[in-house]
Amino acid sequence: MPLQPSRVVAQLKELRALTGDADGAQRVAWTETWATAREWLASLLADLPLDVERDAAGNDWYTLRGESERAVLIGGHMDSVPNGGWLDGALNVLAGAETLRRIAEEGTPPVTVRLVDWADEEGARFGRSLLGSSAASGSMADQDELRRLVDRDGVSLPDAVGAFGVDLDRVLDARAQLETAAAYLELHIEQGPVLESLELPLGVVLGTFGVERWRVTWTGQAAHAGSTPMAERRDALAGAAKLALAIRDIAREAGGGAVCTSGGVVCRPGIVTSVVETAEQLLDQRHLDAETLAAMLARAQELSHAFADEERIDVAWERIWNIQPILFDDALIGLCDEAIAEVAGSSHRLPSGPLHDAAEVARAGVPTVMMFVQSLRGLSHTRLEDTREEHLELSVAALDRLAAKTVAHVAAA
Amino acid sequence: MPLQPSRVVAQLKELRALTGDADGAQRVAWTETWATAREWLASLLADLPLDVERDAAGNDWYTLRGESERAVLIGGHMDSVPNGGWLDGALNVLAGAETLRRIAEEGTPPVTVRLVDWADEEGARFGRSLLGSSAASGSMADQDELRRLVDRDGVSLPDAVGAFGVDLDRVLDARAQLETAAAYLELHIEQGPVLESLELPLGVVLGTFGVERWRVTWTGQAAHAGSTPMAERRDALAGAAKLALAIRDIAREAGGGAVCTSGGVVCRPGIVTSVVETAEQLLDQRHLDAETLAAMLARAQELSHAFADEERIDVAWERIWNIQPILFDDALIGLCDEAIAEVAGSSHRLPSGPLHDAAEVARAGVPTVMMFVQSLRGLSHTRLEDTREEHLELSVAALDRLAAKTVAHVAAA
Repeated sequence: MPLQPSRVVAQLKELRALTGDADGAQRVAWTETWATAREWLASLLADLPLDVERDAAGNDWYTLRGESERAVLIGGHMDSVPNGGWLDGALNVLAGAETLRRIAEEGTPPVTVRLVDWADEEGARFGRSLLGSSAASGSMADQDELRRLVDRDGVSLPDAVGAFGVDLDRVLDARAQLETAAAYLELHIEQGPVLESLELPLGVVLGTFGVERWRVTWTGQAAHAGSTPMAERRDALAGAAKLALAIRDIAREAGGGAVCTSGGVVCRPGIVTSVVETAEQLLDQRHLDAETLAAMLARAQELSHAFADEERIDVAWERIWNIQPILFDDALIGLCDEAIAEVAGSSHRLPSGPLHDAAEVARAGVPTVMMFVQSLRGLSHTRLEDTREEHLELSVAALDRLAAKTVAHVAAA
Repeated sequence: MPLQPSRVVAQLKELRALTGDADGAQRVAWTETWATAREWLASLLADLPLDVERDAAGNDWYTLRGESERAVLIGGHMDSVPNGGWLDGALNVLAGAETLRRIAEEGTPPVTVRLVDWADEEGARFGRSLLGSSAASGSMADQDELRRLVDRDGVSLPDAVGAFGVDLDRVLDARAQLETAAAYLELHIEQGPVLESLELPLGVVLGTFGVERWRVTWTGQAAHAGSTPMAERRDALAGAAKLALAIRDIAREAGGGAVCTSGGVVCRPGIVTSVVETAEQLLDQRHLDAETLAAMLARAQELSHAFADEERIDVAWERIWNIQPILFDDALIGLCDEAIAEVAGSSHRLPSGPLHDAAEVARAGVPTVMMFVQSLRGLSHTRLEDTREEHLELSVAALDRLAAKTVAHVAAA
């Protein structure tokens, strides 16, 4: 039977009925609803000649053995955020399953093809995302921290994952899964507005942005709003306001899709009758190029010190988190471009702002590429998340073409 | 006996020992400590030939009858905020008491002279300031609202004031106190940095600022900090940041000591990974001239709409509170200037940002003036509030000269 993209759309709706409610998808990792979704996935694939395995980190692997052990991986995640969308993660898996079915029905492939359903991509319950893929990539270095995590009901992460057969002491054994990997492919909704604004259904992802996430604390002097002349003030909010505006210029000057965000400012004392004494500002900067990202951060810091001098206030920077940019594989980017152009007429290359399991796999040294399908209004992590059905079908067809090209590419290597 | 300014400083220290602790002054209105302070004040004046009366609003009046019923009033307040300073309110009363003693010891004055200790200037316990003076001025129009106020221990305002013999149904009877008033004088610490920065001990207050206090709500669109290109964003914080900076230009251009303050911005969702959807900004604008204040407000609103257009966001203005400027009496301002110049060499005219009981008396049509004495570092409402002792003594002498000039002025009218 040839590929049936419409079947994937039907399966996504079936999954929504099975594991969602009026508020959206409820497939939170390490819950019964998630287990239901994974059992349902297994049942969809039960008629195919696959080896099925749950690894030490809780990732589910569906392996179609080929003439070579070298493997093309196709990945996604069945878990969702609470009140999530019907596509994020599940589209990836079900499109991959459809491709696996098409290949299996054509006979033994020249290389091995594996579908992976990563465990706990979202980190919705314990605040730690990419759990399964970071174990497989070996980048997970914080098991002690994971041991201390508890959910809002007081259940610990070790207990929750233990109920699914996962032992934190052994999760890094999942690294063995990538030993034979020759390529990793992942389809995902864009979760942003770029493709929609370009009126394109599909795009090739160049890599995931590096991220610099900081807390910037401005300290001035509280003073009476009525009796303190303007020239005498040391207003912490003025520093935060200047930086909130300046980061837009920093992003524009950096180019390459750079983004800078000030997600909030907390003012103290924060009352109408006082000049602001301290303003605690959140800053997030992202770029695909590590050097450019470092320069963006340096520029923001340089400007902040100039603003502090102008306002006679102090500024202090505290890093919350950072990650280097992760670039996808040039050869696979080329194949993905071809596959999209063949299916949709034209392609587009763009970076990914959000992180994905694909970034973890790429960090482990496996040649990787992702494909984005348009998201309506850029919405995700909400029941309002949506993509046109014709675009979903195109994405299934394009992923299948990419998989075919990648199998041939790996077989010829 | 001639005036003894140093005695006032000694009395202020005695009061501090009697009613303060390591955290500062504790003379919160409608408490036992406040009652102690007021009884102590009465004992200081017990040897003088005064009529003593508590009016229907709890204000204490000490009246030295003169040849005429027409009265020169000198006012202050014995109450403080919790953990307050040793001068705010008490200096006014004790300097007035010293002047009353000097006049009484000279014999019957040509006009009546009255010292008033206003009840609950600070509003520290129930959040309603100027209680006693607004009853006397007749501006109090919110007894129903007062009836619903409770302190942090759940005690209602009617119960608390009832324990001091005050019946909310009768507080406006206090208006009778101002029927014979021909002038009202008040000394106060500046609670701001102007006189200190000019290296002047004393200044004449021209009036109290009008105030426009608003909540400005900016509404944009939450969006993922990683996946939303800069050009697609509708960032509510950008509007708040632009206004926080623009109000400084508005104040500078308005001149006349204009002040504009953005005391805080609350951002939602307020997380590092999202563009700000709503920013709720507090704005306070003050000026001594009503037309200028109205123009400052109009300019801020006009700019906010321009900023909203630039950022493709919405802006809405909601008034929290406002009050018109209150101008003091030209003739008394002239006498005050003379008194200060005679005592300190040079005077300075300045507006008052904070409100005072004097503003209430002026609103009732009584010719009024205030005198400010320098505050170190502009601090008040804290135990760190302080004024040099030589400046305190100068202020007592200057108030006494002002009282003498005012008595002569009223007698001659």
